[in-house]
Formats: sequence, structure tokens, C-alpha cells
Amino acid sequence: MKARTLSLFSALALTVSSIAARASDPLPSWNDTVPKEAIIGFVEQVTKEGSPDFVPAPERIATFDNDGTLWAEQPMYFQAIFIFDRIKALAPQHPEWKSKEPFASVLRGDVKAALAGGEKALLEIAMATHAGMTTEEFDTIVRDWTTTARHPKTERLYTEMVYQPMLELLAYLRGHGFKTFIVSGGGIEFMRPWTERVYGIPPEQVVGSSIKTKYEVRNGQPVLARLPELNFIDDKDGKPVGIQQHIGRRPLMAAGNSDGDFEMLEWTSAGDRPRLALIVHHTDGAREFEYDRETHVGRLDKALDVAEERGWTVVDMKRDWRRVYPFESNGK
Amino acid sequence: MKARTLSLFSALALTVSSIAARASDPLPSWNDTVPKEAIIGFVEQVTKEGSPDFVPAPERIATFDNDGTLWAEQPMYFQAIFIFDRIKALAPQHPEWKSKEPFASVLRGDVKAALAGGEKALLEIAMATHAGMTTEEFDTIVRDWTTTARHPKTERLYTEMVYQPMLELLAYLRGHGFKTFIVSGGGIEFMRPWTERVYGIPPEQVVGSSIKTKYEVRNGQPVLARLPELNFIDDKDGKPVGIQQHIGRRPLMAAGNSDGDFEMLEWTSAGDRPRLALIVHHTDGAREFEYDRETHVGRLDKALDVAEERGWTVVDMKRDWRRVYPFESNGK
Repeated sequence: MKARTLSLFSALALTVSSIAARASDPLPSWNDTVPKEAIIGFVEQVTKEGSPDFVPAPERIATFDNDGTLWAEQPMYFQAIFIFDRIKALAPQHPEWKSKEPFASVLRGDVKAALAGGEKALLEIAMATHAGMTTEEFDTIVRDWTTTARHPKTERLYTEMVYQPMLELLAYLRGHGFKTFIVSGGGIEFMRPWTERVYGIPPEQVVGSSIKTKYEVRNGQPVLARLPELNFIDDKDGKPVGIQQHIGRRPLMAAGNSDGDFEMLEWTSAGDRPRLALIVHHTDGAREFEYDRETHVGRLDKALDVAEERGWTVVDMKRDWRRVYPFESNGK
Repeated sequence: MKARTLSLFSALALTVSSIAARASDPLPSWNDTVPKEAIIGFVEQVTKEGSPDFVPAPERIATFDNDGTLWAEQPMYFQAIFIFDRIKALAPQHPEWKSKEPFASVLRGDVKAALAGGEKALLEIAMATHAGMTTEEFDTIVRDWTTTARHPKTERLYTEMVYQPMLELLAYLRGHGFKTFIVSGGGIEFMRPWTERVYGIPPEQVVGSSIKTKYEVRNGQPVLARLPELNFIDDKDGKPVGIQQHIGRRPLMAAGNSDGDFEMLEWTSAGDRPRLALIVHHTDGAREFEYDRETHVGRLDKALDVAEERGWTVVDMKRDWRRVYPFESNGK
């Protein structure tokens, strides 16, 4: 009996120490593989007082792509789904859409036909759903959608389809004096209504694509009217431009998942001092989605090719993430 | 003797209590007049937990105009002086400027003739001095200028000609959970190199006018090239647009000094909940400059007319500020 008691005891001790280790682990949803080591090593290197690589807190800027980096992006960008949902919602006020492309295809549920018109068609349905209201009205529309619309595969709210390991990374960085920003090709005002609640990222730290707005006083009340005119595309070589415009400093770290993030990662890692460039590689078809070079959304090709030689850290979702979504039970 | 000792004693006690009051005063360079009361009353109202007007810290956004609100703007905008200085510095590389307007007038020191060409002439000299280099090169140029060039009247560095009461206001607001932003018609990259050091406002909290930039890789090194093309004018009805673009929330308070701030003050004070709109009125020709309706720089006319009916607080520099510049000895 004595031996059994001892063994029970040591098993208990092991469990306790493992729980304690987990509790003190700032990234519990990351497996103990290379990316986690790289992240923690980098953060300790730049935040340890007296270290030769110490970076003062105000310069600790971290930028994150959104689609495919912080939340999912399949079967298509969630903002595209929002557009289709809005066209359906607005159709009763636009009887002419029934016979007008690309609206007619959207209303028939034929996404492929709707997008056959290319960029021009996309722009047309984007403007029909994103312009023509005030900024406050658009904010309400987005809030309503994000708290009601559900993903076709998981049936979860879209704002639930965020990556638990990335939420932990955001919190870990902020806990070490980093200021976290989103730098996304998505619409800036499509993200702002929910990024603070979901990611802890306030509206002023969201950089994205935008349309023009116009200040007007209507019946004595000032409004910002959203106009059907592009202002800025925050994608590819637009990302460093957007970063400079909004932040005015080169990031100390950046994370992305597609070639749309190539220039942001390049700009970040070309700075002096240690920098961290992270690529989320979607390798997990079972728990999430599996895609890279051959996808219509979130294509990762050129950045994957050069990642190793440039010292960019590739996160293999299947290998490196213990858990993907917050709503999953912890895998291990 | 006893009476005299007592009186000495009470005089000493009075002095001590007055010093103590000053030490605990968050705004020691403000006289105890209406604006100081309005500021402190407002801040206590929106930050006191349990108050019906309590505003959560993340929503405490305060926006400040720069020229004439945080630093001086006479005899002309300091950025205009920077432009003239740069044209003189660059002249040896541009022999053609000697016979080409508006450059020739600038080089002869004839500001009036240089500006006779109106907006087109101004744009030409602005682009010649603000574009054609990388963002990092421009940053260095501005840092050099702000640490060497001196104001024609005070012979101080331009970054010394900031208003001590406004520095105290910025610090007081931040001490109460406000995030302070600059929203200026001035060039965003002309301000960023020094606003953190001088105002405690980091680059990412500076909103201003801008030219376009382009991401390029030169000899393997990525740069952002500054192009001679306007991107955004952050003035008048551009200010609420710039606020929405960069901050994404309506300010809880705003401060300006000219009609260029009218729409920012209007947009701010039209929000629900208590808001504070502040106008710095340049009434002190002895200590600073005296101007409002009839000036070529910083014209304050329309905003002054409506201030009272709209509940905007007008700061009368002469009456309300105990001290103007940090380098002055304390007036009282």
C-alpha cells in the first residue's frame, strides 16, 4: 500500500506542477514548438531592462493582419458574406436589383456568377452596402450583423471564429508594454465596432481600407456621410503606407497570413534592432481550413517561399496550436 | 514681540498653505477664472465613478489643434518658416530657383512676393521641400530644424514656444485616463518627430495633413518615398473626417483657436453626454500675440461669434493664463 500511496502522491504532484506550469504559461494554447519559443525569446529580448536590444515601451508597436490572422477567412472573407447579407436585406427597397447584375446573382445565391464581373462588380456591391449612410448608421449595421449572422460551417457568430492562440499573443504583448494594432485589407469601419470587445484593440488602433466621408450639417446635426468612393486600399504595398499614415513608426513585430501581408512583413523586418515577423500557415483542415498557394482567399505563396531565408517565423497551425477557436475544448 | 512673532508665524503659515495649494493644483499656470473651473468641473464630471455622466476611460478622447493652440503661430505658421528655411538650404542644388518664382522671392527674403502666387505658389514650395525624399530622411530634416532654427522675435527654438497652460492641461487629462491627440492642419510628418518629446503625444496620436507616399524596395532596402501629391487636408470640415479616419470615435473634448477648428468643435460638442469645447483666444500682445478676426494666420471669427450660444469655453489668454511659455518665470 505504501508504494501505491507514494505513486498516487507523485502523480498528484506531477499534475499540480503541470497545472502550475500551464497557469504561468502566457501562451497556453500554443504547443511548445519553434514559434512559441521564437515569440517568447523575442519579447524577452526587447523588453528586458539593460539588455542591449532593449526597446522603450512607446516604440513597441505590433501590427496584425485580421482576415486569416486573427479570425478565419473561409469559405470567403467575412466582409464579403456581410455584403451578400446586406444586399439581401436591402433588396425590398431596390426592386431593380432583381434584374441587374451583379445584384441579381447575389439575390439568387449564386456567388460565383456575382463575382464573375470581377473587381468592378465587387466594387459595385461593396459601395451599395457600405456607402449612402452616416458613419454612426454604418456602425449600428455592423454591430447588428456581428451579433446575429452565423458562419455557414460552424454556425458560430463570426466574432467567435477568432484564433485563441492569437488572442493570447495579443494579451501577452500588451502585458509587455506593446501597443497592438490591426492592419488589414478589410474595411476599417467594418472592424472598429467589435475589435475592442473581441481583441482588446480600440478603434484608434485599427488600420484598414476605407471609403471617403464628408462632413455635413443636416437639420442642425453634424454627420459624417459615407460616400461611394474609394479612399485607401490597405493591402500589399498599401500596408506599409497605411502603417506610416496611422502609426508613424515602423512596427517592432508584425503578423500576417497571406501575400497581402508580404510588404508589411518586409517593412517590419527591414528595421534595425531585432524584429519579429510571423506568418500563420493554415495547415489544419480538420480543426479549421487548409490552404495556401492555391486559394482564392488568403493566398500564401511568395511570402512562404522567402520566409526561411528572411528569418520570418511560420506558424504551422496544425503542429503549433493546441487549440484553434475559443469555443473548442482545450485539445490536450 | 509676541504679537510680531505671531504675525510672522501666521504669514509663514499662509505662505506654506499657498505653496501647498499650488503644489496640488493640476493647472498652476491657469488663473482661477472661468476656463479653469470649466475644465476641472468637466473632467471630474466624466471621470467620477458612479456619476451619471461617467465615461469609461477608453472613450475619453481629447483632440487638440496645434498651431495657435499648443504652440505659437505668429508671425506665420512655423511650418511656413520651415519651408522658407529649407528652400534657402536647398538653393545651391537648384540654381534655376534664382530666376523662378516663387523660389526667387523666397531666396530674396520677400515672403509677401513669394505668397503673391496664392495657393499654387504655396503648394509648389511646400512640395519642393516636403516631397522627394523618404519618410526617414524627412524625419531627420525636421529633427535637425526643430533643434536649431530659432524664432525671429523670441530667438527661442520653435519647440520652446509651446503654451505652458496647455502642457499642464494635456498632462492633467492623461492623468485622468484621457488619450490626447493632435488634430492639426499642419503636416503630420512635420509634427511627429517632436510631439512625443514636447507634448507627450506619440506619433500614432497625431492627425494632420499629408502627402502621398509610395512603398519601394531600393537596392534591397524598403523605403516609403514621399510624393509631390496631396493626400489629405486636415483642416476645417477635414478635421472631423480626419478624426474619424484616425481615431474612429467622437472626441469627448476638443481645443482649437481658429475658424479652422470650427467643425472639430461643432462635431465634438454635438455628441451626447457632456463635452468640452475650448477656444484659445490670443488676447495678449505683450506676452504673446494679439489677433483674432483680422489676421492672415489663425483667423478666429465665426467660432468666436457662436462660442457663447454653443457653450464653448473661450480662454482669454491675457486674463486666464498666469504664464504663457515654459521659459517665462512664473508671473505671480
